[in-house]
Amino acid sequence: MSLELSKKGLLVKPSSTLAITAKAKELRAKGLDVVGFGAGEPDFNTPDNINATAIKAIQDGFTKYTAAAGTPELRKAISDKFKTVNHLNYEPDQVIVSNGGKHALTNIFEAILNPGDEVIIPTPFWLSYPEIVKLEDGVPVFVRCDASQNYKITPEQLAAACTEKTKAFVLNSPNNPTGMVYSKAELEALAKVIVEKDIYVISDEIYEYLTYDGEQMVSIGSLNDEILAHTITCNGMAKGYAMTGWRIGYTGAPKAVAKVMASIQSHQTSNPNSVAQMASLEAITGPQESVGIMRQEFDRRRLYMFDRISKMPHVSTICPRGAFYVFVDISKALELSYNGKKIETCAEFARILIEEYLTAVIPCADFGFADHIRLSYAISIEQIEKGLNRIEEFLNKLQ
Amino acid sequence: MSLELSKKGLLVKPSSTLAITAKAKELRAKGLDVVGFGAGEPDFNTPDNINATAIKAIQDGFTKYTAAAGTPELRKAISDKFKTVNHLNYEPDQVIVSNGGKHALTNIFEAILNPGDEVIIPTPFWLSYPEIVKLEDGVPVFVRCDASQNYKITPEQLAAACTEKTKAFVLNSPNNPTGMVYSKAELEALAKVIVEKDIYVISDEIYEYLTYDGEQMVSIGSLNDEILAHTITCNGMAKGYAMTGWRIGYTGAPKAVAKVMASIQSHQTSNPNSVAQMASLEAITGPQESVGIMRQEFDRRRLYMFDRISKMPHVSTICPRGAFYVFVDISKALELSYNGKKIETCAEFARILIEEYLTAVIPCADFGFADHIRLSYAISIEQIEKGLNRIEEFLNKLQ
Repeated sequence: MSLELSKKGLLVKPSSTLAITAKAKELRAKGLDVVGFGAGEPDFNTPDNINATAIKAIQDGFTKYTAAAGTPELRKAISDKFKTVNHLNYEPDQVIVSNGGKHALTNIFEAILNPGDEVIIPTPFWLSYPEIVKLEDGVPVFVRCDASQNYKITPEQLAAACTEKTKAFVLNSPNNPTGMVYSKAELEALAKVIVEKDIYVISDEIYEYLTYDGEQMVSIGSLNDEILAHTITCNGMAKGYAMTGWRIGYTGAPKAVAKVMASIQSHQTSNPNSVAQMASLEAITGPQESVGIMRQEFDRRRLYMFDRISKMPHVSTICPRGAFYVFVDISKALELSYNGKKIETCAEFARILIEEYLTAVIPCADFGFADHIRLSYAISIEQIEKGLNRIEEFLNKLQ
Repeated sequence: MSLELSKKGLLVKPSSTLAITAKAKELRAKGLDVVGFGAGEPDFNTPDNINATAIKAIQDGFTKYTAAAGTPELRKAISDKFKTVNHLNYEPDQVIVSNGGKHALTNIFEAILNPGDEVIIPTPFWLSYPEIVKLEDGVPVFVRCDASQNYKITPEQLAAACTEKTKAFVLNSPNNPTGMVYSKAELEALAKVIVEKDIYVISDEIYEYLTYDGEQMVSIGSLNDEILAHTITCNGMAKGYAMTGWRIGYTGAPKAVAKVMASIQSHQTSNPNSVAQMASLEAITGPQESVGIMRQEFDRRRLYMFDRISKMPHVSTICPRGAFYVFVDISKALELSYNGKKIETCAEFARILIEEYLTAVIPCADFGFADHIRLSYAISIEQIEKGLNRIEEFLNKLQ
């Protein structure tokens, strides 16, 4: 034999967002005043009531193994939350608590995919979806969804992408990176195709609490019992409760899927951190005011950013209705030159911005849209203003 | 298509130890006085200094994403610990911090296995090894190691089990479930075979601090540079620091392996819980007295248990030198009858003990030894005494 490594492991793309983040960190360490639009996490602290509960759990010695799929109390609370907030009928034994949203997705795909199964991913997409699918022996099938359709997949596109090998479709609303939210009517049309083709929909609802302009997140599994039997809903504590570091994600799934996920998790990781589970129980069942306060602040930043970017030359954007990202079309800028040299790629666009303007933005080639960048508004309004001034200055120099 | 699930996911064996644990819990809930020898976790609380550090991390707002493979500080501390405690030369970039020991093993096998690769597992084994290997498309190859050889694999056995397809060999010392510890000379002989056959050794050292009778755990990767290049060492905070619920495991690996593991982890789970990472930093770099105090107490219980069991009829055991388990040969008891009915299986032996004697023991069929049971001494000496009295009473009734 030899020490050869896993072929699919070797093919995993290291996250390109990390390269920009690392560069920003390096420049900051040199004392430079970097503005970072890369953040995928709220800039707020975890709310006090949640922290206090976690501290009490530690003091009470709640630092032992729990049931592998999560404590009965937390699974019950999530089941209740699914019912009351999302109108999703998942019983506690259909709920699996995992080490964050990515881990929930990993377990889902591991539970449903056989080698060669296809998973339809609307493009642009959050960059980890295809990598997770490939690591679980699936084949990502990309469907391009342009700005003209608000970056949302249509039922016709979904139907056309289905083959004999299609096992699942990934839906992410509110969407990372586009900030778009699917309406109930749009979901109903998609649900018909999903049921007709007899495939799963993986509904990633991690940004559920972050919607604006009166927009409401609708859970596709809430539409009717037929679609619910095809729906695996995943979610987590990170974005709504500013709990990114705690690493608690959760899944609601048809019983057969949940059972396999629980078995897999019992061997591959066991229970998620016990203290974080207790903190999550408080987050879900305790006072919810902090969620609204954070959303309000995100909203204020969103409107400011959209207004500013709309007035900038060579770029365009659609007003985001959810999450905390603005997805910016830079295709015209890529045709132009900076200091006599054509820019050409979004990576180069981002490189100039970080190196010469100390402003980190996410180039979206790895999100499937090579002529777009993503800007997060999970930073203070002062930082946003400073960063946008710099981007504007840069854009004004293009010719 | 259809909603068919993952074939290998469906084949995962739900942990049989959980069935006994669930039964014990059910009886306790009825108010019955159950003694549980099933525990795989220390009955001590996480030491105060570690808890205090975790609480401070929460108060300081250290609840955000960290680098996916762990904080630089923790990776550095683990690298230092590998060097000073284990004489293992792993640089910080060769260290990956994961969501517990199981997760470390999952990432290791995912990083090195291609479909059909064989992994040699000495039997008896900890029951999750084969399940994790199968989930990562590997083929477990079992090598039976009898009581006559102290349940340890010999270099001749290891060499004979190697084929063209062998990718790795799993070494677990101190061992779960046997409590055996490999000597330096034994490891040297095994290391020769590993290097000659050019395979990896996965050295699971999770019980490293729990050795007795002056026995010392030797890390196989510390023997020489050649074996180190073939060694992936995994470990975790759970057993030595009474930190089971915190879920922090870690791996030291050759650079190429660590790189693939880091990429995989960045998409599949991201960083482990940030607060638990801070707690682990304190565990590794802070005062170590509590480790010795817990070990001393385990040792006292071990000697008592071994002495008592050695004097019981129809069973035999070898004095354990590490971990916190006594592995008991019940083959003679299985030939006998209880209330006129032959016992026959270890599951039946365990069933009678829990139902009629309110004493939970782990039947070891799923550990590869169907005529043995495992008793943990991670419970109080009073509980141990009570439970052993019950087991003795039961054994005395066999005829």
